[in-house]
Amino acid sequence: MKKIYMDHVATNPLHQDALDAMLPFLKENYGNPLSLYEYGMVARDAIENARFQTAELINAQAKEIIFTASGAESNNFAIKGIAYANQNKGMHIIVSKVEHHSILNSARFLEKSGFTVTYLKVDNHGLVDPEDVRKAITDETILISIIHASPEIGTIQPLAEIGAIAREKGIIFHTDAVASVGNIPIDVDALNVDLLTLAAHQFYGPKGAAALYVKQGIRIVPLVYGGIQEGGRRAGTENVPAIVGMGKAAEIAKRDLNKRMDHVKKLRDRIIAAALKIDKVTLTGHPVKRLPGHASLLVEYIEGEAMLMLLAGNGIYSASGSACSSRALKSSPVLLSIGTPVHLAQGSVVFTLGEGTTEEDIDYFSETFSKVITRLREISPYSKGWEETEDPTCITKK
Amino acid sequence: MKKIYMDHVATNPLHQDALDAMLPFLKENYGNPLSLYEYGMVARDAIENARFQTAELINAQAKEIIFTASGAESNNFAIKGIAYANQNKGMHIIVSKVEHHSILNSARFLEKSGFTVTYLKVDNHGLVDPEDVRKAITDETILISIIHASPEIGTIQPLAEIGAIAREKGIIFHTDAVASVGNIPIDVDALNVDLLTLAAHQFYGPKGAAALYVKQGIRIVPLVYGGIQEGGRRAGTENVPAIVGMGKAAEIAKRDLNKRMDHVKKLRDRIIAAALKIDKVTLTGHPVKRLPGHASLLVEYIEGEAMLMLLAGNGIYSASGSACSSRALKSSPVLLSIGTPVHLAQGSVVFTLGEGTTEEDIDYFSETFSKVITRLREISPYSKGWEETEDPTCITKK
Repeated sequence: MKKIYMDHVATNPLHQDALDAMLPFLKENYGNPLSLYEYGMVARDAIENARFQTAELINAQAKEIIFTASGAESNNFAIKGIAYANQNKGMHIIVSKVEHHSILNSARFLEKSGFTVTYLKVDNHGLVDPEDVRKAITDETILISIIHASPEIGTIQPLAEIGAIAREKGIIFHTDAVASVGNIPIDVDALNVDLLTLAAHQFYGPKGAAALYVKQGIRIVPLVYGGIQEGGRRAGTENVPAIVGMGKAAEIAKRDLNKRMDHVKKLRDRIIAAALKIDKVTLTGHPVKRLPGHASLLVEYIEGEAMLMLLAGNGIYSASGSACSSRALKSSPVLLSIGTPVHLAQGSVVFTLGEGTTEEDIDYFSETFSKVITRLREISPYSKGWEETEDPTCITKK
Repeated sequence: MKKIYMDHVATNPLHQDALDAMLPFLKENYGNPLSLYEYGMVARDAIENARFQTAELINAQAKEIIFTASGAESNNFAIKGIAYANQNKGMHIIVSKVEHHSILNSARFLEKSGFTVTYLKVDNHGLVDPEDVRKAITDETILISIIHASPEIGTIQPLAEIGAIAREKGIIFHTDAVASVGNIPIDVDALNVDLLTLAAHQFYGPKGAAALYVKQGIRIVPLVYGGIQEGGRRAGTENVPAIVGMGKAAEIAKRDLNKRMDHVKKLRDRIIAAALKIDKVTLTGHPVKRLPGHASLLVEYIEGEAMLMLLAGNGIYSASGSACSSRALKSSPVLLSIGTPVHLAQGSVVFTLGEGTTEEDIDYFSETFSKVITRLREISPYSKGWEETEDPTCITKK
């Protein structure tokens, strides 16, 4: 059977060149970067090289990159670290309703410590209105955090405009760019951001390596205290192999970005066209301002998990909602935020493409997706109409 | 030139079997463990297998293991997570003065949020007196955290006795066992601990994988909020390859523990015997209650960094103080805590052995160490006596 991976937003295969760069650090170059002798120096130099490569991908300086272990860690670090560093100036934070759980739950944690958080609404395409940001700002506002691109609906936010407002008001601006870095051009200066989260496995780097860009001069309180690693801002023995792999993957992502974008955009447009030909299938997110390899759909009368299962049974691997809730059978907060009715939100499916996706994959997809929907609608009780009184409570499966 | 790695407390080479276990997850098995389809299931099963293997090493249950990215993260998670989860019961914490920076700095962070921390003194061997723990307990005490074995002086604390007192008083007890797990037998029940920190690279597992043991029924507030990974207690896409490698390394460590202990203990005793024959060289830490592969010394009239450099020049790789401060030219707080005068603390050197260390290595060491000391004393201004008025301030080198 064919196996077609269409879940690149969940994670990606490791690029062979990144793995090759990592292997010496999984074998003979095992030194602790803090050590003074040769083994330590080799590791230290490799990390600094990776820091430079990672910085280049987002047009930052190497010293502005702090390595972490995941996008979630970077997001927690950014939100809590900036809040604690600035709580004497004010205790108000602005985020959107379509942030990743690592942002939303960090914000909720801070609310318990006396911070106030504004959760900005989005429009039907998932876009934050920069004027809403401006209106939400108070004298107490110390941080604005808006996701760059939604892993769930693909929409790309107008960060440059929001960032300009933040700059004008002197407020620190963070973005969770996990889903966008490596997929579209990123320039921290052009986006007017002060902090930016990125994760290596989103651009064919290894799991376990991520970073937080912190603009020079911005003070941040550590999330992980300890030794002097990362300039005292993030302790813990460095995951040298993963950091080296991240650097290499960043270098490749910068080099191949346009080629990758063109490739997946063309294929994605074919997916969307094929899907929209099917009755009662709609696109979520913005039709144009969206990630190039991202097709997110709502299929009426069908339950997302059943759809994933039957697609997987046919060798097509996809997701329903963000990677972090794909085992949580609940209505996606992002879909509800863009005005999707609860019964429709259950029928979400997301196809995300990568450099390995082929034209033949899309041919097979188009044929299979249509068949899967037809089959499921035949057996679905919901095809007679979803109960509008359905309990919208989130039910998390173990 | 010979290259003899005697800094196993800083980090260790990755065991070949652990690397072999990791490779499929760096290559074809790249799925996100949260995904519902085959690639996800393979990764998920691998993580659960590693959880079981890791639990076995410390006589815990698999569900009591939370994977993290480093010992420092686990320590931050334990201290802050237990403090936040129990602050309504009380806001007093007890730690020792010889904890790792990740514990001490987490405690200091909590002090800024209104917690009170008692820093227990240790005796000249670095031992905490369990009766001091008892005396420090108040009605407000919610957490006791005592390091299991010191990476710097090798001393092993009487955890079982301290834990018994904690149990008697109903107080949660955590230990930082980064330096001990894999090096001596660990049984969380026998040690009476509720939480325990361990790191894979200390027992020939990969960097980037660590864990926090949290006894069933103990509630903890996450350090990294986000998705539903690790039962909602530690978010972030799992570093699958590293976790798999950690599990394999734990399995091997359990299997080979006695053999490894016997091997390094015999060689360590030879190192200590050879070192103590040299004039004005003394052992730090406890003579008996110490890690089997750990020899920590004070060399009078010599500056530790110069000693490391000249040893490295002769192919012997060692440390001065803990891994996390080996680039910080300062008097070690641990050495000062055991009553070492500032001028003597500068002459600390630590040799830590591993399964690859050979009898020949020790022959070479014995000869070389003596020569290095002789040479350095010839050129050292301090051999005429250190200035007692020397500024004891910590100077951190960039």
